[in-house]
Amino acid sequence: MDGSDRDGTGAARVLRTRRGKLTRARRAELCTSVLDLLREVGYDSLTMEAVAARTRCSKATLYRQWAGKPQMVAEALRHEKPVALAGIDTGSLRGDFLAVVDRLSKRRMERDTALLRGLLQAAHAHPDLFEALRELFVVPEVTSLAEMLGRAVERGEVSADTPGLSFVPHALVGLSLAHQLAEARPADPAFVRRYLDAVVLPALDV
Amino acid sequence: MDGSDRDGTGAARVLRTRRGKLTRARRAELCTSVLDLLREVGYDSLTMEAVAARTRCSKATLYRQWAGKPQMVAEALRHEKPVALAGIDTGSLRGDFLAVVDRLSKRRMERDTALLRGLLQAAHAHPDLFEALRELFVVPEVTSLAEMLGRAVERGEVSADTPGLSFVPHALVGLSLAHQLAEARPADPAFVRRYLDAVVLPALDV
Repeated sequence: MDGSDRDGTGAARVLRTRRGKLTRARRAELCTSVLDLLREVGYDSLTMEAVAARTRCSKATLYRQWAGKPQMVAEALRHEKPVALAGIDTGSLRGDFLAVVDRLSKRRMERDTALLRGLLQAAHAHPDLFEALRELFVVPEVTSLAEMLGRAVERGEVSADTPGLSFVPHALVGLSLAHQLAEARPADPAFVRRYLDAVVLPALDV
Repeated sequence: MDGSDRDGTGAARVLRTRRGKLTRARRAELCTSVLDLLREVGYDSLTMEAVAARTRCSKATLYRQWAGKPQMVAEALRHEKPVALAGIDTGSLRGDFLAVVDRLSKRRMERDTALLRGLLQAAHAHPDLFEALRELFVVPEVTSLAEMLGRAVERGEVSADTPGLSFVPHALVGLSLAHQLAEARPADPAFVRRYLDAVVLPALDV
């Protein structure tokens, strides 16, 4: 019995062994299924029973991994990769924007919109979920935008005192939800391209 | 016993009398409570029990009025008044936009954002709810914007072929959700004013 088996019982040892059985790959698989279910039914209708059934594991296993649903969903979100925006530097702001859209797909946009829609209310109630949602959908986008806009200002393409500079995130974050509301159908990359040319670039006087 | 008492029983008569007791004012009161609860907990956590408790009526009464939760919530949404935007005509597009914002209050914006957040997932599952949500938050806004933009084009303030004209609704609908996501705090009318000046008016070349 090693020093980490604090209560020194056989039961604790079995528990530890079982916990060990959830490999990283299996945990990743659980996280993927949690997000799939979230896209289908949203947070409130997501039950531990449904996750257990979908992943063919017991509820007990889930509760050994996570204290509860908010913790499970927050980890599942952190396990998801944001759209990769690193390494974009085309030499013009419009080129950079279009390169971002090239990395989107209609499917990815719809999946992300479903996740956002299914989690907005829960994120309001659980600060940790809200942060996980921001880390996935807001922070990477805002960081990349800041770099692109910074380079555009350095190149003299955008004047540093353009008021629109501070509002680019507001004009883009949640755009797919706005499209769904305004047009009653999901957005696609072609719409984002038109919106960038018609709204965002003019707002930056580009 | 009149002709409308189809099954001709005393029980039916009592039922009808009770149904009759739900005056228009009382029905309006129920709708208001439904929306209040929605803002607090969102659609999925809104139970008929909670509505019954909040409004001090029985679940049976609720089920006599509405077939179920989606129908009840849809009527509650249709009972809510959109922000009144009629009669705005200041003679300039910026003046019209600012007059719209003058009719908003921080409280109203927060209450509307809460409702939208709490209903997005349910609206995805229930087309009638989606329509009720659009009738409250999208259609009146889009209609008023179209009138204001039409006048601005007639006055020659905005050129009719400005690409941004088609995208004003997308840039504004859901802006409060975008603000919440981007800044982790609710939007207020002052933010909307800055956004109009920094993004929407430049996108229209005004």
